[in-house]
Amino acid sequence: MNYASKLLEQAVDEISQLPGIGKKTAMRLALHLLKREADHVHRLGNSLIKFRDEIQYCKVCKNISDVEICEICNHPGRDHTTVCVVEDIRDVIAIEQTGTYKGVYHVLGGLISPMDGVGPSDLHLGSLFERIEDGEVKELIFAIGATMEGDTTAFYMYQKLSNKPVKLSSIARGIHIGDALEYADEITLSRSIAQRIPYEASIRPSHPE
Amino acid sequence: MNYASKLLEQAVDEISQLPGIGKKTAMRLALHLLKREADHVHRLGNSLIKFRDEIQYCKVCKNISDVEICEICNHPGRDHTTVCVVEDIRDVIAIEQTGTYKGVYHVLGGLISPMDGVGPSDLHLGSLFERIEDGEVKELIFAIGATMEGDTTAFYMYQKLSNKPVKLSSIARGIHIGDALEYADEITLSRSIAQRIPYEASIRPSHPE
Repeated sequence: MNYASKLLEQAVDEISQLPGIGKKTAMRLALHLLKREADHVHRLGNSLIKFRDEIQYCKVCKNISDVEICEICNHPGRDHTTVCVVEDIRDVIAIEQTGTYKGVYHVLGGLISPMDGVGPSDLHLGSLFERIEDGEVKELIFAIGATMEGDTTAFYMYQKLSNKPVKLSSIARGIHIGDALEYADEITLSRSIAQRIPYEASIRPSHPE
Repeated sequence: MNYASKLLEQAVDEISQLPGIGKKTAMRLALHLLKREADHVHRLGNSLIKFRDEIQYCKVCKNISDVEICEICNHPGRDHTTVCVVEDIRDVIAIEQTGTYKGVYHVLGGLISPMDGVGPSDLHLGSLFERIEDGEVKELIFAIGATMEGDTTAFYMYQKLSNKPVKLSSIARGIHIGDALEYADEITLSRSIAQRIPYEASIRPSHPE
């Protein structure tokens, strides 16, 4: 494509590297920036850089945070004996949106997926097991999408933890099979947390106790 | 939404101000940036700022440019007597993509739209009329979308220029190459019949001198 401008070409190249944004959309966004005041564009560019450079991950739960230990882990009003295990940060945000969950979280940062070369050691599992060893945690809620990778990851944690003095539960399968948590509506999501079932029951769906 | 991070919140806020990007997409893009190397994100942010700060508009044709007079206007091989009048920069890029147009351009920067409060004085019309006065231009091709605003703008230019020694033409309206007739709208179809061309001309598509 002939852009008549190297600056435009560079901007379009960079924007079109974002997921789901092709060259034409990138061009539309770049030309939109020309109509915005320079101040706005500076704020946009700098906020991306600042975000990438300064963001931290909570030492306890691996959620993103502006400080060492995130707001949720630091909150005295939260139930620190109940830990909701999720795939990524978006799941935390989705569950927080329901406003009904009062426990804390553990963000795995992914799911076990041999196809993609993601094994247990690539996830924040060691720190989860340490939290269990510390003894404060009474219940783990697996709030993981009902996909092959999600089921594999939950089963892995179950195998590692089933002999520990911690209750393992799974959010109710009110979540559609194959759906990502972030797209579930808030009522379904909040009910699936309230109606969690023992993990053993969740892997034997045809024989409810 | 509770983002657990002000930095994330700011980044999502800024990204979601782009046209066609909502909060969820903005979140997805922001979290994607965390997986990219910091260098990439710096390049993205800085290229947007540099683009906005340093871009210029060609003094002659109002196309965007890195220099005072754009590559196209400065090109000795282009036909400077033929000027294609377009709404915006994207139209220049689209026409350049065809690789068959050898004339130059004039970018209006919009279309007359009383509904949106855009009048003739908001467009780059004065500089177009000056180019005509200078005497070099022999033909203006209106390559403007066939919308109410496009038709109004073309008619305005026609009224201002019809007594000048310059040929005014409009790009052909008709059925897209490769389109089935049954899917064409009635106005296009009826106009394409009324404005039919000799068959010999239709099989010599590119340069009718």
